[in-house]
Amino acid sequence: MKPYSQLSKEELTALKKELEKQFEDVKGKGLKLDMSRGKPAKAQLDLSNGMMDILNSETDLVSSDGVDCRNYGILDGISDARKLLADMSEVPERNILIYGNSSLNVMFDTVARAMTHGFLGSTPWCKLDKVKFLCPVPGYDRHFGITEFFGIEMINVPLLPTGPDMDMVEKLVAEDPAIKGIWCVPKYANPTGISYSDETVKRFAHLKPAAEDFRIFWDNAYSIHHLYDDKRDVILELLNECVKAGNPNMVLKFISTSKVSFPGSGIAALAASEANLEDAKKYMRVQTIGHDKLNQLRHVRFFKDMQGMYAHMRKHADILRPKFEKVWEVLDRELGGLEIGTWTKPLGGYFISFDSMEGCAKAIVAKAKEAGLVLTGAGATYPYGKDPKDSNIRIAPSFPTVEELAVAVEIFVLSVKLVSIDKLLEA
Amino acid sequence: MKPYSQLSKEELTALKKELEKQFEDVKGKGLKLDMSRGKPAKAQLDLSNGMMDILNSETDLVSSDGVDCRNYGILDGISDARKLLADMSEVPERNILIYGNSSLNVMFDTVARAMTHGFLGSTPWCKLDKVKFLCPVPGYDRHFGITEFFGIEMINVPLLPTGPDMDMVEKLVAEDPAIKGIWCVPKYANPTGISYSDETVKRFAHLKPAAEDFRIFWDNAYSIHHLYDDKRDVILELLNECVKAGNPNMVLKFISTSKVSFPGSGIAALAASEANLEDAKKYMRVQTIGHDKLNQLRHVRFFKDMQGMYAHMRKHADILRPKFEKVWEVLDRELGGLEIGTWTKPLGGYFISFDSMEGCAKAIVAKAKEAGLVLTGAGATYPYGKDPKDSNIRIAPSFPTVEELAVAVEIFVLSVKLVSIDKLLEA
Repeated sequence: MKPYSQLSKEELTALKKELEKQFEDVKGKGLKLDMSRGKPAKAQLDLSNGMMDILNSETDLVSSDGVDCRNYGILDGISDARKLLADMSEVPERNILIYGNSSLNVMFDTVARAMTHGFLGSTPWCKLDKVKFLCPVPGYDRHFGITEFFGIEMINVPLLPTGPDMDMVEKLVAEDPAIKGIWCVPKYANPTGISYSDETVKRFAHLKPAAEDFRIFWDNAYSIHHLYDDKRDVILELLNECVKAGNPNMVLKFISTSKVSFPGSGIAALAASEANLEDAKKYMRVQTIGHDKLNQLRHVRFFKDMQGMYAHMRKHADILRPKFEKVWEVLDRELGGLEIGTWTKPLGGYFISFDSMEGCAKAIVAKAKEAGLVLTGAGATYPYGKDPKDSNIRIAPSFPTVEELAVAVEIFVLSVKLVSIDKLLEA
Repeated sequence: MKPYSQLSKEELTALKKELEKQFEDVKGKGLKLDMSRGKPAKAQLDLSNGMMDILNSETDLVSSDGVDCRNYGILDGISDARKLLADMSEVPERNILIYGNSSLNVMFDTVARAMTHGFLGSTPWCKLDKVKFLCPVPGYDRHFGITEFFGIEMINVPLLPTGPDMDMVEKLVAEDPAIKGIWCVPKYANPTGISYSDETVKRFAHLKPAAEDFRIFWDNAYSIHHLYDDKRDVILELLNECVKAGNPNMVLKFISTSKVSFPGSGIAALAASEANLEDAKKYMRVQTIGHDKLNQLRHVRFFKDMQGMYAHMRKHADILRPKFEKVWEVLDRELGGLEIGTWTKPLGGYFISFDSMEGCAKAIVAKAKEAGLVLTGAGATYPYGKDPKDSNIRIAPSFPTVEELAVAVEIFVLSVKLVSIDKLLEA
């Protein structure tokens, strides 16, 4: 196909007329489709239904270390669960602390804790005039939501194919003691799907922040969420790199089974240095008597070990892969060569990131909505919801069926084409 | 029995010798007994084992309002769970918000939220020079732990047989805008077991605090935890009283099923005005995508409704009642008439509160420990762990068996007698 920019005004106008007819046709169908959130499909949830049978009135409800999981106690999680999530986090068991059902909640509570109590004796952030976070963009809207909620100033850092722009990160953290953290999704990043290079991870471990309480918020949400068996991203384990670099306390790693077992009914953990975990436990000890140990036991008995979890993730991949490929097939076929958008082809995670021509994303999302397709709001992948180029759109292919997706992506590409033509005709 | 105070020094010394021999005998048995925490016994946990069968791979996992409880979503809880916990809290469904596994966690997060964000637009407490809480004493150590952790100054208020000393509460909250809250366990209070009178509840509803963001933290932890069928305490419902008094936002009610189903694997809720809940949801919406809906569904299907929960609580009572009665039997028999201690006889809850002669509690707890009996630390029922009279000891009879309790209470009364004699001999 010829790039749209090389078409004459007349050609664009004629094309627009034709596309508008197609759009009206699909709009007339009164569809309701949703590609807005990284939500597992029903078929994926069914994979874990067996977890509901794992504990029953006939099984004993005692962990292998002899804890009656029905009663109070055991602040940091039963040891079987600690072992499983330590393995999943690629850290020693002494570096894991089990929380409740949501790693987002752990991250939120960690920021809340820093606000009122600081880290390892540092000044509580609420006592400081200014606290700033670095935000690799595009990124995860709920991360930015947390820092915005606590009045933390967010600074955009470009996300390159190797990870955040480390020249910029190194310079900023070294210069400004108000910079207390950075949000990272190091593997199959939300939304771009890129994974950080070894060099990026090493440069993270060797950061020399001006703030002693600077922390890397390392949200390894998609650590085992591959789409393929034979090609997958591997990233260096950051806690170990930080230990080697003499910065063991600089990283806080977050993990959960939300997209492994059941979203909302999984288990979450914080992986960090023993000093950081002891600090976190001072808070947790006052906050709760303990998290849900029966759910910890349920997970441990269902997955058994990492081999069990890997096998389970392959089943997820079998469901997700055709969906990603359907999106790519339509995007390639319909938009390839038109030069009105680019999109990512990650090997895992939950998203495809689409970049339209500048100033088109909001209009594309609005256009798609007219035809019944809900997309993540344009701008959501940037702090304060402000995409300076108004071009990034996050596509979440997991929830609809392949058949629904085929229609959804047709609506999407029609919307992209129509909005792009309008943009070009304006110029 | 003759009061110890009427015995001569010689009589006391002779008695001491005899009691010391008894104490050495029991000490020699090398027992390990625990009456320190309000922890349900194994037999009580067994009552809920059927809950482990309620959800399985054959049942549908969809709530009655059509929500797939396995997936993300539904911030405020599935409607079945909202209805159940609203009924348990004696409030309309619009006044309930479901949380995770622990009401302690809800209380902690509520104080944390007030620290960083205030209530309904008020100044965040962390921005104030001084924040104070009223603490009816003796009270619950974990309540005091939360306020201490956030640097909130705690002011003791005597707990009378009718509830907190309301003359003092009314005066203090009206005078001092730094007083932002009061901790209350209104029914079968921890540790005294008293329940607030109707007049006390009404006076709470009509408080005129100087601080607009003053909140009554109403921890209804033992709302349905009766020991008897035919005699039980009933308290006025405070939210409704506050609405009638024109103070709908002054109360935050906390509830959970921790001592109904499984401690640590229950569900918790906040009951409050719609304005307070909307305020809480602004925080929750950033903190999590949602709490564990499968566990909510599990509870709803197991208990069905309040009648189901009441029937279940009668089974708990059948297990707990003989334990309380065993403690009372030994206390009455061994300490009755000696005037070296008083104890409560509540109709529900988890504790018996014992008041020794002044200056004896720490020594009694230490003495009992010598013989292998762990009691709640003396002072724990007071803010900062400081019982000004060093006399209150919380007895938790739930966890040991009746047989173990019989021995434990014998050790306890021996310890009380020995320490009291020493005190009298000193004088």
